[in-house]
Amino acid sequence: MNAPSLTEAASLPLREARQPSSKVAHFGPEEPLWLDAGRMLSPFQIAYETWGELNADKSNAIYVCHALTGDQYAASTNPVTGRPGWWSSIIGPGKPVDTNRYFIICANVIGSCMGSTGPASTDPATGLPYALNLPVLTIGDMVRAQAMLMDRLGIDQLFAVIGGSMGGMQCLQWTVAYPERVFCALPIAAGARHSSQNIAFHEVGRQAVMADPEWQGGRYIEGGVRPHKGLAVARMAAHVTYLSKAALQRKFGRNLQDREALGFGFEADFQIESYLRHQGSSFVDRFDANAYLYLTRAMDYFDIAADYGGRLADAFSRTKTRFCLVSFSSDWLFPTEESRAVVHALNAAAASVSFVEIETDRGHDSFLLDEPEFYAAMMGFLTSAAKARGLK
Amino acid sequence: MNAPSLTEAASLPLREARQPSSKVAHFGPEEPLWLDAGRMLSPFQIAYETWGELNADKSNAIYVCHALTGDQYAASTNPVTGRPGWWSSIIGPGKPVDTNRYFIICANVIGSCMGSTGPASTDPATGLPYALNLPVLTIGDMVRAQAMLMDRLGIDQLFAVIGGSMGGMQCLQWTVAYPERVFCALPIAAGARHSSQNIAFHEVGRQAVMADPEWQGGRYIEGGVRPHKGLAVARMAAHVTYLSKAALQRKFGRNLQDREALGFGFEADFQIESYLRHQGSSFVDRFDANAYLYLTRAMDYFDIAADYGGRLADAFSRTKTRFCLVSFSSDWLFPTEESRAVVHALNAAAASVSFVEIETDRGHDSFLLDEPEFYAAMMGFLTSAAKARGLK
Repeated sequence: MNAPSLTEAASLPLREARQPSSKVAHFGPEEPLWLDAGRMLSPFQIAYETWGELNADKSNAIYVCHALTGDQYAASTNPVTGRPGWWSSIIGPGKPVDTNRYFIICANVIGSCMGSTGPASTDPATGLPYALNLPVLTIGDMVRAQAMLMDRLGIDQLFAVIGGSMGGMQCLQWTVAYPERVFCALPIAAGARHSSQNIAFHEVGRQAVMADPEWQGGRYIEGGVRPHKGLAVARMAAHVTYLSKAALQRKFGRNLQDREALGFGFEADFQIESYLRHQGSSFVDRFDANAYLYLTRAMDYFDIAADYGGRLADAFSRTKTRFCLVSFSSDWLFPTEESRAVVHALNAAAASVSFVEIETDRGHDSFLLDEPEFYAAMMGFLTSAAKARGLK
Repeated sequence: MNAPSLTEAASLPLREARQPSSKVAHFGPEEPLWLDAGRMLSPFQIAYETWGELNADKSNAIYVCHALTGDQYAASTNPVTGRPGWWSSIIGPGKPVDTNRYFIICANVIGSCMGSTGPASTDPATGLPYALNLPVLTIGDMVRAQAMLMDRLGIDQLFAVIGGSMGGMQCLQWTVAYPERVFCALPIAAGARHSSQNIAFHEVGRQAVMADPEWQGGRYIEGGVRPHKGLAVARMAAHVTYLSKAALQRKFGRNLQDREALGFGFEADFQIESYLRHQGSSFVDRFDANAYLYLTRAMDYFDIAADYGGRLADAFSRTKTRFCLVSFSSDWLFPTEESRAVVHALNAAAASVSFVEIETDRGHDSFLLDEPEFYAAMMGFLTSAAKARGLK
């Protein structure tokens, strides 16, 4: 076995991928994870964080699902970036997801790079990083692993499952795969399947990563390199899709960056260019390129009706969960009509469902931003569900 | 001077860039092109095609402006791809741009790679390809060169200037820079400036090209290589923006490519993936990477009101041109509101203007597709303008 030699820049995320700062649940040979690919993953581990206290009858647990490039540090400082958690404005004492009231769990999805088993983890068969030898994973696999974590924590039924974007997909998957285990669900800025356009943008990103010669067929860790340039381009392309045309125009317009006039060159003349370049370069410092391939693939594969002959309502036929779907009016990645299609299917399945479209020009990323109406809707729904559940 | 050594795949487009199959107008040291960058280009050449006959008083000439990756072969077979011209359904006997009636000119824009001077042309100062030593060009520079070509052909006033996308930008620029030389104008699927989102997508493409190590700081021709992978990724990202979400869903949806079930790998599972990969790989066989950088930059720099204190109506204050603007309802790159902003400015300048929004789900690329309503609008406008101009 070659000892991986790493550049300084690569070492922090990779250390976190293997020895996370958070809690870790290990699943040994006796507890394999059966995958949709028809293979199994074993051993594997899940890195997770919790906030608040689990009550005596274990009825106040909320599972928070993270998005593509998110992690378990929803409300804790991220050890790689040193920045506050990505939902620290939503999770906390007195906040919409109230840590005084609920016990909140957030785990890094399998396939990612913040401590749960993913392509940077060691393949027991070779002693080397899995790279592309890790089976391709699905949203179903992620949620199956999360259910095993809930078993480990002794939680039979979650009071709520909440998540935006890829987190919203997991949230829907929870309600379909484990209808008895989810009292209420809040899928945000998501849909029942990944659209053709969304697959297209993900494919652009994957091709950008794989075009980088430092990707080395996925075996860059052993080579002591990382496909920084390709991953940065992938992130830049994706980032444009997270914001609305109107918000980009409002925030950046055609404003120039640190200059009085056009430079007549290929440096970043416009603020939007230097903003995007920054998004690309800061992303590669915290994320693993192969994990990006695996997680985009999992989203592309998501189509919750596929196992039900394409009839979405049938997927929810056994549901007893109370739903609240949230969309954002300027989200063109997961437009309101995709949430509405889920609402219609839930109606057809006679489920309890409410639906809120938040008016905002901030696009898909609104679920990560301070949107008072969104917070109010979330808090109202959880409070009412908590009453129905008999929580204090 | 090093003789450029080229791979087989690179040779056809490069030969065309230097010795085009079409007509060529050469402009020697006595006729430099003055550039917005404050520099001059000399010598330079313009490769162009014509169809139909110029009438005795030279009043029936129509100038067709091509889009980013278009060329002068609007209605002739493309010598590189062997395919029919990109507007062969629009230009021809009895077609909307009727070759029995009009004399039609289309020239490759400067900065491109089909025979007009661009980054692959030889820099007289070094004997090597210009690469990034070519000054950054603007839409204004392109149109100034086109006006010099009209001088050469002895055409004082064009009956019409027509173009879509980047061609629509040139069309607007013609009416502002040479108000007396354009009797009527048909800017299609364009706007008065490039939006922040559009700059963002172009920047993603440029970064993809420049991230490719075979780009070699732009000097790949001398190196005998070409940044195929980076340029293919750039094209894939751009191509997604040319189509609407609805059209992608209708055409490709989540259909699988040559397989019964998901492959659980990173090959092209979905038709949309293999379609995009094909778009990328066929593009690099016909286009020069540096030309892609220059032309995207020219579009980004386009802001017709900038020289008029941001007051778009002032840009048109001297206009006597009759305008017909065309937009497509599902075009999210140049949405209808951008054409409407031009219409409002023209109204404020008391210009003669009509405006048609074509209902279609086919997105920005609709201007290249068979859209009967679009053809009818174009033909109706030209026929009416021809009558006003006294053309037979």
